[in-house]
Amino acid sequence: MKELVFGAAYYNEYMPYDRIEKDLTLMKEAGMNTIRIAESTWSTEEPEDGVFNFKPVTDVLDAAEKIGMNVIIGTPTYAVPAWLVKKYPDIMVTNRAGQVKYGPRQSMDILNPDFLRYAERIIRKLAEAVHPYKCVIGFQLDNETKHYDNYGKYAQKKFLEYLKEKYKTTNAFNKAFTLAYWSNSIASWDDMPDISNSINWNLHCQYEHFLRSCAADYLKWQAEIIKEYKRPEQFITHNFDFGWIGYSYGEQPGINHYEASSAVSLAGCDIYHPSQDQLTGAEIAFGGDKIRSLKKSNYLILETEAQGFKEWTPYPKQLRLQAFSHLASGANGHMYWNWHSIHNSMETYWKGVLGHELQPGVIYNYAKEIGKEYKKYGTQLINLKKKNEVALVTDTDSLTALKFYPMDYPTGGLSYNDAVRWIYDTLYKMNVECDVVDINALNPADYKMIVTPALYCISQENARKLHDFVAEGGILFSTFRSFYADTKGTVYDAPHPYNMTDIFGMEYSMISQAGSAKVMGSPVEVYAELLENKNAQVIATYQHKYWSNYAAITKNKFRRGTAYYFAAKTSEEVLVQILKDALKEAGISLYPVKFPIIIRKGVNSRGKKVYYIFNYSSEDYFIDNPFPDCVDIITEKPYFTGDKIEIADWDFVILEEQ
Amino acid sequence: MKELVFGAAYYNEYMPYDRIEKDLTLMKEAGMNTIRIAESTWSTEEPEDGVFNFKPVTDVLDAAEKIGMNVIIGTPTYAVPAWLVKKYPDIMVTNRAGQVKYGPRQSMDILNPDFLRYAERIIRKLAEAVHPYKCVIGFQLDNETKHYDNYGKYAQKKFLEYLKEKYKTTNAFNKAFTLAYWSNSIASWDDMPDISNSINWNLHCQYEHFLRSCAADYLKWQAEIIKEYKRPEQFITHNFDFGWIGYSYGEQPGINHYEASSAVSLAGCDIYHPSQDQLTGAEIAFGGDKIRSLKKSNYLILETEAQGFKEWTPYPKQLRLQAFSHLASGANGHMYWNWHSIHNSMETYWKGVLGHELQPGVIYNYAKEIGKEYKKYGTQLINLKKKNEVALVTDTDSLTALKFYPMDYPTGGLSYNDAVRWIYDTLYKMNVECDVVDINALNPADYKMIVTPALYCISQENARKLHDFVAEGGILFSTFRSFYADTKGTVYDAPHPYNMTDIFGMEYSMISQAGSAKVMGSPVEVYAELLENKNAQVIATYQHKYWSNYAAITKNKFRRGTAYYFAAKTSEEVLVQILKDALKEAGISLYPVKFPIIIRKGVNSRGKKVYYIFNYSSEDYFIDNPFPDCVDIITEKPYFTGDKIEIADWDFVILEEQ
Amino acid sequence: MKELVFGAAYYNEYMPYDRIEKDLTLMKEAGMNTIRIAESTWSTEEPEDGVFNFKPVTDVLDAAEKIGMNVIIGTPTYAVPAWLVKKYPDIMVTNRAGQVKYGPRQSMDILNPDFLRYAERIIRKLAEAVHPYKCVIGFQLDNETKHYDNYGKYAQKKFLEYLKEKYKTTNAFNKAFTLAYWSNSIASWDDMPDISNSINWNLHCQYEHFLRSCAADYLKWQAEIIKEYKRPEQFITHNFDFGWIGYSYGEQPGINHYEASSAVSLAGCDIYHPSQDQLTGAEIAFGGDKIRSLKKSNYLILETEAQGFKEWTPYPKQLRLQAFSHLASGANGHMYWNWHSIHNSMETYWKGVLGHELQPGVIYNYAKEIGKEYKKYGTQLINLKKKNEVALVTDTDSLTALKFYPMDYPTGGLSYNDAVRWIYDTLYKMNVECDVVDINALNPADYKMIVTPALYCISQENARKLHDFVAEGGILFSTFRSFYADTKGTVYDAPHPYNMTDIFGMEYSMISQAGSAKVMGSPVEVYAELLENKNAQVIATYQHKYWSNYAAITKNKFRRGTAYYFAAKTSEEVLVQILKDALKEAGISLYPVKFPIIIRKGVNSRGKKVYYIFNYSSEDYFIDNPFPDCVDIITEKPYFTGDKIEIADWDFVILEEQ
Repeated sequence: MKELVFGAAYYNEYMPYDRIEKDLTLMKEAGMNTIRIAESTWSTEEPEDGVFNFKPVTDVLDAAEKIGMNVIIGTPTYAVPAWLVKKYPDIMVTNRAGQVKYGPRQSMDILNPDFLRYAERIIRKLAEAVHPYKCVIGFQLDNETKHYDNYGKYAQKKFLEYLKEKYKTTNAFNKAFTLAYWSNSIASWDDMPDISNSINWNLHCQYEHFLRSCAADYLKWQAEIIKEYKRPEQFITHNFDFGWIGYSYGEQPGINHYEASSAVSLAGCDIYHPSQDQLTGAEIAFGGDKIRSLKKSNYLILETEAQGFKEWTPYPKQLRLQAFSHLASGANGHMYWNWHSIHNSMETYWKGVLGHELQPGVIYNYAKEIGKEYKKYGTQLINLKKKNEVALVTDTDSLTALKFYPMDYPTGGLSYNDAVRWIYDTLYKMNVECDVVDINALNPADYKMIVTPALYCISQENARKLHDFVAEGGILFSTFRSFYADTKGTVYDAPHPYNMTDIFGMEYSMISQAGSAKVMGSPVEVYAELLENKNAQVIATYQHKYWSNYAAITKNKFRRGTAYYFAAKTSEEVLVQILKDALKEAGISLYPVKFPIIIRKGVNSRGKKVYYIFNYSSEDYFIDNPFPDCVDIITEKPYFTGDKIEIADWDFVILEEQ
Repeated sequence: MKELVFGAAYYNEYMPYDRIEKDLTLMKEAGMNTIRIAESTWSTEEPEDGVFNFKPVTDVLDAAEKIGMNVIIGTPTYAVPAWLVKKYPDIMVTNRAGQVKYGPRQSMDILNPDFLRYAERIIRKLAEAVHPYKCVIGFQLDNETKHYDNYGKYAQKKFLEYLKEKYKTTNAFNKAFTLAYWSNSIASWDDMPDISNSINWNLHCQYEHFLRSCAADYLKWQAEIIKEYKRPEQFITHNFDFGWIGYSYGEQPGINHYEASSAVSLAGCDIYHPSQDQLTGAEIAFGGDKIRSLKKSNYLILETEAQGFKEWTPYPKQLRLQAFSHLASGANGHMYWNWHSIHNSMETYWKGVLGHELQPGVIYNYAKEIGKEYKKYGTQLINLKKKNEVALVTDTDSLTALKFYPMDYPTGGLSYNDAVRWIYDTLYKMNVECDVVDINALNPADYKMIVTPALYCISQENARKLHDFVAEGGILFSTFRSFYADTKGTVYDAPHPYNMTDIFGMEYSMISQAGSAKVMGSPVEVYAELLENKNAQVIATYQHKYWSNYAAITKNKFRRGTAYYFAAKTSEEVLVQILKDALKEAGISLYPVKFPIIIRKGVNSRGKKVYYIFNYSSEDYFIDNPFPDCVDIITEKPYFTGDKIEIADWDFVILEEQ
Repeated sequence: MKELVFGAAYYNEYMPYDRIEKDLTLMKEAGMNTIRIAESTWSTEEPEDGVFNFKPVTDVLDAAEKIGMNVIIGTPTYAVPAWLVKKYPDIMVTNRAGQVKYGPRQSMDILNPDFLRYAERIIRKLAEAVHPYKCVIGFQLDNETKHYDNYGKYAQKKFLEYLKEKYKTTNAFNKAFTLAYWSNSIASWDDMPDISNSINWNLHCQYEHFLRSCAADYLKWQAEIIKEYKRPEQFITHNFDFGWIGYSYGEQPGINHYEASSAVSLAGCDIYHPSQDQLTGAEIAFGGDKIRSLKKSNYLILETEAQGFKEWTPYPKQLRLQAFSHLASGANGHMYWNWHSIHNSMETYWKGVLGHELQPGVIYNYAKEIGKEYKKYGTQLINLKKKNEVALVTDTDSLTALKFYPMDYPTGGLSYNDAVRWIYDTLYKMNVECDVVDINALNPADYKMIVTPALYCISQENARKLHDFVAEGGILFSTFRSFYADTKGTVYDAPHPYNMTDIFGMEYSMISQAGSAKVMGSPVEVYAELLENKNAQVIATYQHKYWSNYAAITKNKFRRGTAYYFAAKTSEEVLVQILKDALKEAGISLYPVKFPIIIRKGVNSRGKKVYYIFNYSSEDYFIDNPFPDCVDIITEKPYFTGDKIEIADWDFVILEEQ
């Protein structure tokens, strides 16, 4: 990539009147260089079966060619037109609650052959229509694709074939899932019941794993179609999204990013995050560390908020802080969702760069400032290369298994993503950068230290990989609920942590609620495994009248490496203390500053080290330059090691090493 | 009306044994003069298709004629018999969750032709049966009629016709609702999908508006039938009810009172309200101010609680306080729901005048006291005329739009009715009486000051009406979320407040959550529009590190009038302060007393001013008579201006000006 | 019974590999003597229609015979195989939400003739298969049988016949339920609508009463089949369970224990209870006092937790404390659910004696200790006879009625079971042992004092029984909501408490929420009936500005007895004070110790009095021996009256009178 991408999703189709030229001019004036169009609007592009109308798309492309604006074309498949559902009612997905009624997007059965046939046709027609345009720099496949909890007939039939292939006999199948339990075993594949109400959580785990594969296959199928049309220099991307709790949060349960990433040539994602006083940069960093790790390369932020909801309306300087935070994680730019606020339907208050009045205002002016700086400093910031020493491992199978076997039953409050984010955020606040890596993508040799938060599911092969990592000198830091079950969530009938008791030097059988237990003086939150020490160093036992003979935190030298086990959710202070010890053991040094001052670094395209120093707070901060002699890219002011650096509220400094 | 109405709903059909004579005698002894009968009991009146039995009704009428008791006849249509649903299962309404099963009342499709045919027949038969009776003073159409969230085939078909008529082409329709969004546009009216799961909130807004019209039309249709039978002196009424949060609260979403009011000759309503320590009189006043404004005349309370739920069991004197509070709002009397507590089914603990033992007890004796006073002072109190200087404007379209676009997303807690009641209750506690007027019924010339709480939806015509009101010297007091969208909730693509930026002297584009912002020292609750001042007087800006350059409260002289804008939900203290200023600007003077002392006034039929002074508290109060020289109607004690008046706990004084 | 039963549920079918011999040996070594097998596994026993495979059962029986282990055979009918539902989809029960999908257990229609035919066959086949085995000591019918909210066609048809039989005419039926209300009356039995959505709560009360009878009949039907096969010495039992709020709590709404108990020769039940710091013994005592009263004899704990959920993981000594607590209530032993933790499906974390690693661990060792003591002291502890002077009366009809007419509407928080457990637990903590007796099983002559918590429903016959009890010298202690309605929840149209106003010396009509009312200085919680005293002794009136003339607690001498009425939920302190007075009146003396020290007593098989003294706390306690001279069964240490006895945390002492 030559220049940082800056722009917005643009929907000519949603405009109350023709504004294409006006809008593109405003964008250009704000320094924007890229728009994303065409996705979401199948019913406009094909208003009737076989009747195509790409004028709303080509009008934008014509204007873009003229004004010099890059365009990403999205396939419109994630929202189906009413006429198609009228013709093939089965296209609407059936989830555990029944068949979804027409209305929302992302509600179709992506295995339905009628859907696929029509989807292929509209993709081909669109690809043909946009082919002549040079401004088209790439394609986005579908939109935030997931499996949509598909319990329809096609999905269940395909799953049955998958099971037959995997288990061969019903006996083996019954055994693998203990289907004898509550009389659920079958003697003939034909007796396989609708599994939507099964009480065999492991069958559901297996099923959701299978559905994630279906979603990945669907993207790969779209990619193959697009490849027939695209020019060599055009990229294929997808806007992967994350778990959602009102904002982007942890792993996405509906698709496995790593599995699906082979469909794209350029990784992309959508990141929405809290703002105002809740802006921490953690979602930006987590999302970036994860998406960058897919292709081990730079990526695009295809969607992020300009304003969004009223609680996201940015304070002055926050939009700019967010923009450069993406770059600091390795993004090659970002795009807002969306250019203009919409006047109807359910995202009216997911506001864009322009407000409802459709005039340049405060937010537009913030964007303009960013556009100017992207242009000015882009060459020093683009294509940032990062090399982290720590890998934080995530796993969608563990996510699903811990949904069915919640760590915090019956109290609620500690999901898999909570565990992942607890560890990630603590490292983030300590200014320890890490790659967020899928367990199946992990190459242990790339890292000094590997962290596994709640890695409940583990294949024998992956267990071996981590075992060898420690044996060969690595530092493994594992939390409660790691190494307990196979990839479908079936608990191993052997001492736990499964196949890792030697490297951890302990084992355990009993778990307890936290109760009044403490660890290192801090109350245990939610969960406590009662570790029986064998030959580890017990860093902490539980402070509790009856559990004091059980370890809560252990450290064990195993061959050339060291393995830490953290058996309970504690206060962040305790976690920090143990992480510091582990990082030291791994030979990883820490900066003397911590959150709200956040440091992110990399090497730019001219081979220089670049340090970002962000202030995620409403207060001004002064720090002593912890880096070698540098120059502030923006002010061009030199900072020698130890020089005082001022970073105002919601501001940042970018230093380039001399 | 000649005498104050006092009585109860009476269900001979629900009695465990024949008690008609006993009950009517007890009522008579308690001073009651009116009962309401016959509604709810279709299955008794027509036990089989075409087999009619009005004996339970005429038995009561015979006794009523004999003892001298007035009767209001309710049409029984709101609860259908089982045999009818067995014959025509489609009669049960289909709402967004599917077709309702038989059981509850108000669950039929009021557009179903089979239902309408049978409903017409039972109404005609009943009207015939009761026609001979002189004691029948009027008819009540149906009962608390609403649209019952009708998403059935008849409703959707009729709505489609409504849309075709309104928009002519699918193109215009698509454009008006931005149906291109998420691929929801249609090229043929035949492709219109079931809208029950539509994500186009504006289509739902339009649909609910349409459904409210259907409900109003249904009442008008019943009225036309009744008119064929009724004697000239007999009235037609309906018991309009209100929003419901466990008690009557703000606007009713299921029907528009004003639109439906042409069906009746005498306005009526049901008011249920908190009691015991939570009795404030606010629901009584709000309901009265609204229903009185429908016909600009006196009205009936057709239902209110005698005991109701256990948390409504009245303290001594509260029933009496409530009764006279209704009169003070212009009611010409009230009726309890119901005479006797029921021994079966779901309203067993919605207790009546008589307890389950069916004997006169404490509550009966309270009623008897009221009956005596109604009789004694009735001529001085009946037909109270009120002339208020302030109008509080409500709007069912805004209610619906703010349901779909909640002000407080995602935190919850501030509905449209909350906003309405916040403003209304504050005025009420300040002892500023107002008319509660539907935006489409508003005649600005009638008022000095108009208050618009969260008047989100506004037609261009109504905007012009309010604009002119200010230009011509009126005082407009508008809150956050006023003048933002058209009547179907489509946001105007122009500066906001739409078409009113000149009269308010400001505009705004951004909104924020409240966060830590304050206004005039008090924390903002829930919501903040960030006003950009143009030429208004900024009464208050936000006290907030980043929003301090935005106004929260503005006041603007525009031609001969003044317009206030209140951009956030603040503490009541701040609201009171600004309202005082606006009232002063409007030339409206305030009493020196406030809640729990409540003053309500009017002119009685002999042309004298009547002042009610209520004490809504458990403490005794003394006030200085703020009125000209008066006489206490009950004690006949004279009070000169400034004289000390004692009002005991939950008591009141009624003064007539000399 | 000759020896205390000690064991666990054992599922060979759920084992990941063949462990029968290993498991039975481990059990044997832990002193276990009984396992329960075969229930839950129909799909293993009959993998295809008519193909039977009892090998997994007989393998266990063979090993049991060999090693000397008793076996209870459970019929497998409560979880149906997939092939059966595929063949007869109607077998899945239809509840108010619709037909249940295949998956969970206890989801079949127990009135479905196809189900019954297949159930009968598998029971017969199983009974035949296990017949040769001497180790089989008894049979368990089905499992925790309930009616499963059956609103299916068979149930509704049968209910209609039940109604016809009971009421003869629709007129009588309409009258009995006030079906005229909201037009629900019918003129022909054919018009009876699906009652699943009826708003006539009393019809639901009657229906649930009927469904409980269906569940009881179903167990009796199974018993008749088993009787054809069983040897005379083999018992028939059933594991009755209780209300469920995450643990066993009060009456079971889905079946009436007393009605169903004629199906069994040996009473049995499942008790799950909070543990760790929440272990109080109250659930163990309540369940025991109830189940013992069914047959007025000893009973079995067929299931209780070894570990269960993580919040139940026992502290050291708690498992032992629990075991002996069961014996102290009259249990002849207990069995864990289950032997081993399961590695798949929804009860993976309802852990057993063995953890997931399937090796003897901490919990196994606790069990072993119990096994040793059961063996050593068994003859002194088995067949404990208890004779209580107090009966606490429960009623499933009242439970249902107070579900539909909640005492605490609209605030929530006081169910029927809450009221029952409030009274029971208070007596329990005072160390007053009682029988928990179904109202229809009550023989007043057996008791000095009868306690009726919230006995809302009462037949005229049962009212008479209690009336006579007081007249003849008994002490009746009744709380709020007693004696208000008939058995279908229809409120009596006469003064309340119905037919008991003479014995209580008061009556009441009004009820109020608690508000700020106090009784004897303590705040009223939730509920207050406003008693109008006639000739009782008013122990306490309400302390409240407006309710102070109403009584809250009354005591009335009536002929030879005394009746107490407790009209509100108060603090436990107030309840204790009044209970003390009533117990004194009844001539029942109290121990000088109270919870957490719990005393339970009985007479053992050699005619000696046995006193259990439990310490349900983490603190050590010392008490003065309040009994005649005794010997500690375990330490053999003698304790003379008044001797200091130490009871360590979660420990106990068992004394046998000399």
